[in-house]
Amino acid sequence: MQSPARHIEDCLARIARHEPGIRAFVAHDPQAVRAQLAQPAAPGAPLAGMALGVKDIIDALPYPTASGSVLHAGRQPAADAAVVAQLRAAGAVVMGKTVTTEFAFFSPGPTRNPHDRARTPGGSSSGSAAAVACGFVDAALGSQTAASITRPASYCGVVGFKPSHGSYALTGIGGLAPSFDTPGVLARDVAGAAAVHAVLAGPAPAAPVRAACPPRRIGLCRTPWWDRAEPATRQAMHLAQKAFATGAEVIDLDLAAFAEGADLQARIMAYEAAQTLAAERLTRPDGLSPVLRDMLRAGVGIDRDQHRRNLGRARDLRRRVADLFGGLDLLLAPAAPGEAPLGLAATGDPIFSRLWSLLRLPSITLPGLTGPTGLPVGIQLLAAMDADEALLAHALWAESLLPAARRPDLSDDAARDHAGRDG
Amino acid sequence: MQSPARHIEDCLARIARHEPGIRAFVAHDPQAVRAQLAQPAAPGAPLAGMALGVKDIIDALPYPTASGSVLHAGRQPAADAAVVAQLRAAGAVVMGKTVTTEFAFFSPGPTRNPHDRARTPGGSSSGSAAAVACGFVDAALGSQTAASITRPASYCGVVGFKPSHGSYALTGIGGLAPSFDTPGVLARDVAGAAAVHAVLAGPAPAAPVRAACPPRRIGLCRTPWWDRAEPATRQAMHLAQKAFATGAEVIDLDLAAFAEGADLQARIMAYEAAQTLAAERLTRPDGLSPVLRDMLRAGVGIDRDQHRRNLGRARDLRRRVADLFGGLDLLLAPAAPGEAPLGLAATGDPIFSRLWSLLRLPSITLPGLTGPTGLPVGIQLLAAMDADEALLAHALWAESLLPAARRPDLSDDAARDHAGRDG
Repeated sequence: MQSPARHIEDCLARIARHEPGIRAFVAHDPQAVRAQLAQPAAPGAPLAGMALGVKDIIDALPYPTASGSVLHAGRQPAADAAVVAQLRAAGAVVMGKTVTTEFAFFSPGPTRNPHDRARTPGGSSSGSAAAVACGFVDAALGSQTAASITRPASYCGVVGFKPSHGSYALTGIGGLAPSFDTPGVLARDVAGAAAVHAVLAGPAPAAPVRAACPPRRIGLCRTPWWDRAEPATRQAMHLAQKAFATGAEVIDLDLAAFAEGADLQARIMAYEAAQTLAAERLTRPDGLSPVLRDMLRAGVGIDRDQHRRNLGRARDLRRRVADLFGGLDLLLAPAAPGEAPLGLAATGDPIFSRLWSLLRLPSITLPGLTGPTGLPVGIQLLAAMDADEALLAHALWAESLLPAARRPDLSDDAARDHAGRDG
Repeated sequence: MQSPARHIEDCLARIARHEPGIRAFVAHDPQAVRAQLAQPAAPGAPLAGMALGVKDIIDALPYPTASGSVLHAGRQPAADAAVVAQLRAAGAVVMGKTVTTEFAFFSPGPTRNPHDRARTPGGSSSGSAAAVACGFVDAALGSQTAASITRPASYCGVVGFKPSHGSYALTGIGGLAPSFDTPGVLARDVAGAAAVHAVLAGPAPAAPVRAACPPRRIGLCRTPWWDRAEPATRQAMHLAQKAFATGAEVIDLDLAAFAEGADLQARIMAYEAAQTLAAERLTRPDGLSPVLRDMLRAGVGIDRDQHRRNLGRARDLRRRVADLFGGLDLLLAPAAPGEAPLGLAATGDPIFSRLWSLLRLPSITLPGLTGPTGLPVGIQLLAAMDADEALLAHALWAESLLPAARRPDLSDDAARDHAGRDG
């Protein structure tokens, strides 16, 4: 096995070579990376030598936290975010700050999809997903308010784990809508996500989930938005269902009673985002992108009593979904409408995660399946509130039944790089 | 009516005269106060000329945010907290940063109770409550995780309003335990709290609650901790009940089913605080007070599965309390065990608010009643989740039935001041 220092140097070399074509990082300083190796991890540190990317809404020294916004460019935090402090204490090495969309909403950064550079990596945890896919890092912190872990994980072919809402510390993380904001993990496989989760889900590290556990009954959720699922996603759901049916009972679940969930999520998010970003909105609105300004304007327009009713409906739906898990261990649902869309001007459609973000359930997106152009298409698994470890154990089982995730071919960069050096 | 500038100058004069004996502020710069008057409020600004105190876990330019901790001394924020930006846009004038206990937990700052300087003002929103009581400000931002608005409001004889959890923006506010952390308002009367609430409870200001509304049925909650209520609080509850019974039906409510709530609150808070303060705890533990270190150590010691069960129990109790409000409009409960205790080394017992913080309900503490030594003793009113405006309307009614709050006698300062000038 490689020494931590050797492994980090390998990651640095990959970054040096391929980052210019991917742009996963908004800030990356090899000297700052190596400085961390000077202080070796404590004996038995569970993540010793793990190369970590940190989404740029999360404070990590010595870097500023720009949150993908010109308004926050150069903002220097006084300390690490709590989650970063926990991961560093466990031995992780911060490799840099990864690109986020503007304030973790829609307006994209420069990151390209490692599997096809003409396509979006998804958002808002764009750089985190791309950095993991490229092997720049072993794992990266992301966050989800609507679909910001699930979607980039699906598009980049990596594991995306969003724990139950409230599981990880929020200190030093820029918020968007507190009802839903959830830090989470992008990783190469389920074991990687479980290792990070074991450190972050409590004040002290716990033993990570290592044993695969088959669920007894899986609820297959085509969801009320199935008409927006492209053939790629329909095929992925079909293949996953077939694979899982070899070891578990899979039953069709009608979620018609939850159909309002996606709209509720969008409305509560807009209202809360317009509160959360009040300083920016009220004092420097010209520094916000048009798509963000539009959402904030929509939030400002929502009647206060209507918002309270929306919150009440959300609570009702959370109670209802808890009842569903009486007879089920796991839900299987689409992660995204299809393969990553062409173009870098938008990050894709969050529709297939809005309901789950509203419900605050733990979710994991698994790679391995592909669409008609050979690009990754994830599938999403969900468990009951706070059943995060059970979800990870089921995900280890599910991962073993899916094809291995294909890594992106970065040889173009290599070719370009050699051509450059030769020429 | 006074001009805003004249009113602010009056507040500045009161601060100059009496603050040395009270120590409500950790940072107060008259020049920075006057600079805000140079930019007059927009026409129709609902809080034009309101003098505002800001608890020092909340960012407000140009001041640092020290959070009552040597570890954060001098930390300069890049912008106002969202709530401060909203209040400034509405015309409020920030008078300075008010003393908080260390990270809004127990370790006290230097603030004295304006009614008796040998006594605690309560915590953690110590300076905010004292500043309002002294007329240094019209209203002040506070926050509550266990009892940090209710208790200082009760001890200092001011109104303390904690909205439903999740009502106000959290950006730029230091957290302690996200399950409960709730920014709120200390004010001289219910109308003052309602005016601030109308600005903060949504992205855009709404019309404040102005009309008193009698509740039909009030649930009288002696609570499972009644044996910890001193004669002062028993008497206050008796008098409030008698006053309210003139206009509403008051029925005894047995909360035995909620008895575990106080312990649950303390345990969930300890676990989450040990996550929230991970950077401080892991890298600079010697900079934390012994009482805080003890709580964090307790949090680290809580088993992860036990914590999940605690969260599940909390959700159950929230569902149960929602059912109670089917037949009731309002609850009446103690705000604190009695008058402010003697001494400045501790901030008093949070027991009478822990359950309500766990349940996330809106709460308002009303002054007017007094204990055997003539010091203020508050009573607490609560309404259903998200029924904040109904609570304020009922509180206007209740306020009209209670004696007027006695203001602290600051003439000692005046005497000392004159003596000093004469001598």
